[in-house]
Amino acid sequence: MESKSYMVHLNGNGVHSDSMHSLNVNGGVYCAKMKIRKQRWNIKASEMSKNTLNPIRAIVDGMKLSPNPDKAMIALSIGDPTVFGNLPTDEKVLQAMKDAIDSHKYNGYAPSVGYQKSREAVANFYSCPEAPIEAEDVILTSGCSQAIELAISVLCNPGNNILVPCPGFSLYKTLAVSLGIEVKHYNLLAEKSWEIDLQNLESLIDDKTACLIVNNPSNPCGSVYSKEHLQDILAVASRHCIPILADEIYGDMVFPEHTFHSMAALTTDVPILSCGGLAKRWLVPGWRMGWILIHDRNQVFGQEIREGLVKLSQRILGACTIVQGAIESILNNTPQEFYQDTIGFLKSNSEICFSALATIPGLNPVRPSGAMYLMVGIEMDSFPEFESDVDFTERLVTEQSVFCLPASRVSPFVPDSSPSLSLQAFEYPNFFRIVVTVPEDMMVEACSRIREFCQLHYRPVVPEGNDLDQ
Amino acid sequence: MESKSYMVHLNGNGVHSDSMHSLNVNGGVYCAKMKIRKQRWNIKASEMSKNTLNPIRAIVDGMKLSPNPDKAMIALSIGDPTVFGNLPTDEKVLQAMKDAIDSHKYNGYAPSVGYQKSREAVANFYSCPEAPIEAEDVILTSGCSQAIELAISVLCNPGNNILVPCPGFSLYKTLAVSLGIEVKHYNLLAEKSWEIDLQNLESLIDDKTACLIVNNPSNPCGSVYSKEHLQDILAVASRHCIPILADEIYGDMVFPEHTFHSMAALTTDVPILSCGGLAKRWLVPGWRMGWILIHDRNQVFGQEIREGLVKLSQRILGACTIVQGAIESILNNTPQEFYQDTIGFLKSNSEICFSALATIPGLNPVRPSGAMYLMVGIEMDSFPEFESDVDFTERLVTEQSVFCLPASRVSPFVPDSSPSLSLQAFEYPNFFRIVVTVPEDMMVEACSRIREFCQLHYRPVVPEGNDLDQ
Ligand SMILES: Cc1ncc(COP(=O)(O)O)c(C=O)c1O
Ligand SMILES: Cc1ncc(COP(=O)(O)O)c(C=O)c1O
Repeated sequence: MESKSYMVHLNGNGVHSDSMHSLNVNGGVYCAKMKIRKQRWNIKASEMSKNTLNPIRAIVDGMKLSPNPDKAMIALSIGDPTVFGNLPTDEKVLQAMKDAIDSHKYNGYAPSVGYQKSREAVANFYSCPEAPIEAEDVILTSGCSQAIELAISVLCNPGNNILVPCPGFSLYKTLAVSLGIEVKHYNLLAEKSWEIDLQNLESLIDDKTACLIVNNPSNPCGSVYSKEHLQDILAVASRHCIPILADEIYGDMVFPEHTFHSMAALTTDVPILSCGGLAKRWLVPGWRMGWILIHDRNQVFGQEIREGLVKLSQRILGACTIVQGAIESILNNTPQEFYQDTIGFLKSNSEICFSALATIPGLNPVRPSGAMYLMVGIEMDSFPEFESDVDFTERLVTEQSVFCLPASRVSPFVPDSSPSLSLQAFEYPNFFRIVVTVPEDMMVEACSRIREFCQLHYRPVVPEGNDLDQ
Repeated sequence: MESKSYMVHLNGNGVHSDSMHSLNVNGGVYCAKMKIRKQRWNIKASEMSKNTLNPIRAIVDGMKLSPNPDKAMIALSIGDPTVFGNLPTDEKVLQAMKDAIDSHKYNGYAPSVGYQKSREAVANFYSCPEAPIEAEDVILTSGCSQAIELAISVLCNPGNNILVPCPGFSLYKTLAVSLGIEVKHYNLLAEKSWEIDLQNLESLIDDKTACLIVNNPSNPCGSVYSKEHLQDILAVASRHCIPILADEIYGDMVFPEHTFHSMAALTTDVPILSCGGLAKRWLVPGWRMGWILIHDRNQVFGQEIREGLVKLSQRILGACTIVQGAIESILNNTPQEFYQDTIGFLKSNSEICFSALATIPGLNPVRPSGAMYLMVGIEMDSFPEFESDVDFTERLVTEQSVFCLPASRVSPFVPDSSPSLSLQAFEYPNFFRIVVTVPEDMMVEACSRIREFCQLHYRPVVPEGNDLDQ
C-alpha cells in the first residue's frame, strides 16, 4: 500500500489559507491546505471481534486431523443431529413450513419479538400450573443462541460476572467475553452424574454476579438433574438474589426413566429466563428458531427487563417468519411417536456406547440420562504416550479415523497475552465428548475402534510402593 | 418486594463460625453464619439494553393516534411492502423455498457465514468486472440488519465515530449508540435530490472516524445517486482513508430512467462492505436473509477484517437454512418481469403521489428515483396551527386517518439526561415520509385527503414588509 500526497490546485483567484476549510472546486471538494499528506489506510478489526472466540471451531480447525486412509472417518464430534440423515425431522414439521409458505401470510416483517400468535403457541406449549406463561412472556429469537445473547445482554453490564458450568457449552463464554463480562466457571461433579458442586458455585458469587447459567439437560454431559438438585440450585440463587438463565434447549429430551423439570416450575421467587428452541427436539437446528420464556411471578425482572429484551430484539429482528408461521402447527401437530422415536434412538445409542466404553481399561464414560451427548474420562496416567485429551483424540483420528471432541486445551490461536480468553471446548481436561446421534452401526464400529486404540496404548499404572525392591 | 432474613439452622454439633464458609447440611448448602440477611432482589436492565433505541417504533407507539372514525385508516408509514397484499413475491421464489424443504438437505447447521453454495450464488449474482467477488467475499446474515450490525461491529471500537446520512435509516444510530460508538450526521441536500453535502461530510471526519455509511438508493429519500456523485463521495473516503459501509439493500430498485451503481464498482482503492438482502427487491423482508459483500481489492481490510466478520458471525449464527437452500434458485430463476413489475408499480405510484402533492400549497415533495419512499417537505410557516412535523402528521391521522411518518422529533420517551440518544425517526425536521407500496387506489385517496387537510389548515404567509401600514 502506498501513501500519496495530494496537491490541491485552486483555480480562480488563487486564494489559499492555512486554516483547514473546504472549497468546492470543479464539482469536487478539496481541503484548502496547499498540501495534504494522504492518510494511510490503517483498518483494524475491532476489539469486540477479536474478543469473539468460538473455541469449538478453533479447536476443530486447529487440530491436526489426517485420518487413517484405510478407515472411513467417523465423526462423533458434531452437535448437529441431522448430518447423518438417520434422524430426519417429522413430515408434519416440513408440512407446516410448506403450509406457511402457501398461505402467503408470512413474508412480511413480524414484530421484533415475534408474531403474537406464534408467541402464544410457544406459551401454550410450555405453560404449566406451577409456572404459567402467556404470549407476552415469550420472545422469539434467531435460534437459542440469540436467546442466550439477548438474555446475557439484558442482565449484565461490562464488569459484571456470570456463573457458567464447567464442563459446559462454550457459547456462554464466547458471548460474555465479547461483551466485557467476566466468566466464572463452577464445577460439575463427574462422580455425581455431573451435579453442580454447590459449595463451589456459592463461593464464586460476589456483588458483581449478574446471572447464573444452568444448562439442563446438559451439553456436553448428557446429564439430567433431579428435582431435588434443581431446588438446591434455586436455593443458592434465591439466597443471593441471582437471576437464572436456564438453557433448556434439551428440555424434554430425557430418557424414559428420567424426568425433565423446568427450573421455573420449581421456584416461586427466583426470576428465570428460560432459553429454548426448535433446534434439538425437532431436529432442525438450521432453521434458527429459538425463544426466551420470561418467568417472573414476583415482578423481580419487572417491566425494565422485559422492555430491555424488546429493545435488544429490535437490533436485528429475530426468527424467519416462515418458521414463525409454522410454529403453532409444529408444536401442536408433531406426533408423540416422533419425540419418542428420537429419544428411543438416543437412549439406545448412548447405551451401546456407554456399555462398550465402560469395559475398556483406561476409559471412564459417564452414563447420560438425556440430550445427545456422553462424556468419557481418560485415565491419562494409563496412556503415557499422550500429553492431553487433545493428543489422545488427535491420535484417535490418525490411527482409527474416529473423531471425538476433546474437552479441554488452550487453543494455539490465542495469544499468551489474553489469559481471559483461554480457549477450551468445555474447559474440562482429560475428557472427551461423544455425540450419540450417529447411526447405530457407526456407533458400534466407532466403539470397537476406540477399544482397539486403547488396547494398543494402554499401560496399566503400577501402583506406587509395589515395585520389586519392596 | 420484601426482604426476608434467613436463620440458618445447623443440626449436628451446633458448631458455628463467624467467618463465612459453607457447610453441606441436609443435602443443601447453607452459609455458616448464624444469621444472614437475605439480599434484596435488585435486577436492572443493562446499559446496553437501555441504550438500544429504535426511534421509529418509539415514535409510532408514542404518537397519539386516534384516527377519524368516519374514514378508513390508510397507513403510509410502514416500510414493509407486503402488508397490503398488492406486492406478492414471485411464485418461483416460493417454489424455491418448498423445493429446499422437500430436499431434506437444509435442516442442519450451516457454517456460520452460510453454505458455500449459497455464498457462491450471491457472489455470482453481484460480481461484475469492475468489482469481482467470489464466495469467500460473501457473508450471509440474518437480514440486512445483521449485516449492518456485523459491519459496524467489526470496523468500530467504542469511542470511534461513524458518519451516517441525515435524513437516514435509524438503525445505524440504534446499533452504534448501543455499542458505544458515536454517530455524526452528515447532511443530505433536499434541493439537490438528496445528494450528500460533501463539504459538511468532510468537515465531520476526524481521527476517530471508523466508517462512512452511504445508503443508496435511500430510505427515506427514494434518491438514487449518479455515478459522478458516488465518485465524489469515494474521493472523500479515499482522501481520508475511511472505509465505506454501503447499505445497498435497495440496489437495482431504481426507476427505468435511472441507473444504480454499486459503490464498489466505482473505486479501486476504497474498501467497501456492501450490505444487502432479499427483503426489498424480492419482497420477503420477514425471511431475514441478508449479506455482506466484502470488496477489498487492495487488501486494505485484509485477513483481519475477514476473520473478524467470521468470528462475529459465530455469535448467533446467521440466516435460516431453508432460505439459504433456496437462494440460488431465487437469484437465478426469478423472472425479469417480476423485478420490472415491482419497479413499474413503485414508479407509477410515486408519480401519482408526487404529482398530487406537488400541487398542494404548503407541501414540497421531493421526486424520488427509486426505492419505496418519498419525502415531503412542509412549509411550517404556512401551517401555524402545528408546531412540528409530528404535530402535523398526528393531526393528519385524527382528521383524515392518513398516517405518514414524521421525519423528526425528540421522542417523549427519552429522558432529558441523555442527549446523545435524542430520538428522531430520520433526524430531519419539517418533513414526512410516504411509503409508496400501498395499492394505487389507497394512494390516490390518501393524496386527496392530504389535500383536503392542507387546504383546511394552510395560511399563506404574508411576506414581511407587505402589511397595510406600509
Ligand atoms: C446447550 C446449548 N445451548 C444452546 C445451543 C444453541 O442452539 P441454537 O442452534 O438454537 O442456537 C446449543 C447448540 O448446540 C446447545 O448445545
Ligand atoms: C436502508 C435500509 N437498510 C437496511 C434495512 C434492513 O433490512 P432487513 O429487513 O433485511 O434487515 C432497511 C429496512 O427497512 C432499510 O430501509
